[in-house]
Amino acid sequence: MSLNSIFQYFVPKDRKFFPLFEKASGNLIHLGEALNELVNSSDPNRRAELTKKIEDLEHVGDDITHQIFLELGKNFITPFDREDIHALASAIDDIADFIHGSAARMSLYKVTDITAPFTKLAELILQGCIDLNKAVGELKNLKNIRLITDSCVRINSMENQADYVFDRAVADLFEYEQDTKLIIKYKEILSALETATDKCEDAANVLETILVKNA
Amino acid sequence: MSLNSIFQYFVPKDRKFFPLFEKASGNLIHLGEALNELVNSSDPNRRAELTKKIEDLEHVGDDITHQIFLELGKNFITPFDREDIHALASAIDDIADFIHGSAARMSLYKVTDITAPFTKLAELILQGCIDLNKAVGELKNLKNIRLITDSCVRINSMENQADYVFDRAVADLFEYEQDTKLIIKYKEILSALETATDKCEDAANVLETILVKNA
Amino acid sequence: MSLNSIFQYFVPKDRKFFPLFEKASGNLIHLGEALNELVNSSDPNRRAELTKKIEDLEHVGDDITHQIFLELGKNFITPFDREDIHALASAIDDIADFIHGSAARMSLYKVTDITAPFTKLAELILQGCIDLNKAVGELKNLKNIRLITDSCVRINSMENQADYVFDRAVADLFEYEQDTKLIIKYKEILSALETATDKCEDAANVLETILVKNA
Repeated sequence: MSLNSIFQYFVPKDRKFFPLFEKASGNLIHLGEALNELVNSSDPNRRAELTKKIEDLEHVGDDITHQIFLELGKNFITPFDREDIHALASAIDDIADFIHGSAARMSLYKVTDITAPFTKLAELILQGCIDLNKAVGELKNLKNIRLITDSCVRINSMENQADYVFDRAVADLFEYEQDTKLIIKYKEILSALETATDKCEDAANVLETILVKNA
Repeated sequence: MSLNSIFQYFVPKDRKFFPLFEKASGNLIHLGEALNELVNSSDPNRRAELTKKIEDLEHVGDDITHQIFLELGKNFITPFDREDIHALASAIDDIADFIHGSAARMSLYKVTDITAPFTKLAELILQGCIDLNKAVGELKNLKNIRLITDSCVRINSMENQADYVFDRAVADLFEYEQDTKLIIKYKEILSALETATDKCEDAANVLETILVKNA
Repeated sequence: MSLNSIFQYFVPKDRKFFPLFEKASGNLIHLGEALNELVNSSDPNRRAELTKKIEDLEHVGDDITHQIFLELGKNFITPFDREDIHALASAIDDIADFIHGSAARMSLYKVTDITAPFTKLAELILQGCIDLNKAVGELKNLKNIRLITDSCVRINSMENQADYVFDRAVADLFEYEQDTKLIIKYKEILSALETATDKCEDAANVLETILVKNA
């Protein structure tokens, strides 16, 4: 039993952190969907709109993260350990940052030839965001611990797949692409996409820590 | 009210951490100034001197960081939360590391043609160090919370500008520079400079956390 | 005296965390040895075997890390501060990840011409792992604090050497290598090796923190 659980007997049901986390993970799904539309669209105007939309959604995410940190500063009693609230909010914020970062680089570096590893990584990211949102939604009652664990397992396996797709894609660039400038550009964007999946795994690891402490 | 604030009623005014933090953030200003002179100097001898000076200042910073960590280990009662002391000291140490890293790479990679984004980023870094030093100096009495908040707002806006300068500079390299080797070199150094501004923002975020907890 | 030391009077000798940490740091030695054999072998079959062995050892390390985190979740009382257990386990896990990452990239990028900086960095990594293992083994009684401090000092000096080898190697690539694709590949792998030594230093820093708190 953690110090926090001792206090929880005297705490009214949290109405601050859970709704904010649900908003944050819900926002990730919008980001993941926009990213997928982006990597599958060949219309330059639509692509520009989506890049702008992703930027806006990232700002929405920033605001939610900021609110979570403000609440953390104001509240001595929290529904789960402070360090885990901080780590979960940071991981979700990082996922949004790297989705935005990869979209922004595609536009900045004028990369229009979107290859298979890009669409595959975008797909894996969206899948991770959906699983994360599902798990976060279950946090507030902890009645369906199994649902959270299952989501975390799927996120871990998604991240392994993303690693493989990324490593393979970079190795293929070295093997088949002659334009070194293009290799550098592609590698930068693929790396941002892959890091987004790493951050999904970080978030899943925090969820598992919370489960273990409250089991 | 945090656990720490409960104890603070019984704690004599801190004479250990505040002076060390002021030394650390003051040292950053020296580093930022040397960096600015470096990117504006075309005299190879002066450049070599400044690179050496930056290296020495980075060692000074290392020693201060080490002292803060030692004090943290020895003292159960601290003027603000331990995790925030650790995070602030680490962020300041990282700023020094990345200033040093960018100067060292300019010398190692024999980059002598310093373009506009380099001088602009060096300027932004110095501005961030000055604001950080100002905010750190106000920590000890917390009478002018507004001064701290203002510095943090300016640091955040500075970091946004640095992001923009960096992204634009890399996109321009891809567009106009044909020498791929040079693209890689420049990108490495610009990236170190940009990361120094990220670490300024990290430090500002810690300061805001401390404010919220002690408001 | 830390909150944790107050509790330690009532705690039976830890039989969970120390054995797990010893397994984790012992595993690093196996990883370091396999890496050294890899960078010194010219037989493609043996190299493939060693790459596979490193991958397997990394999985072993993952399992140990996971067990440490599980124990951390289950136990309110720990032999040293929770944050330090978490940081030490993470640093050891990161060392394993970067050893594996550098071996995996050599194979993926089909880099067969292993130059002197590779073998030197592999040597330094192994030396760091041996020192780390020695220090971790002394943690459980803290009778030979001097042995731990000495190991940490050697790890710090090893990391400085690795920095120098890496910086020099990258500068030489820029100066003497004309094949830009090869520069990128080499830089990626050297960077993974150098990061492994950074993580050794991170682990040594945690050990020093633990010493200071329990002195």
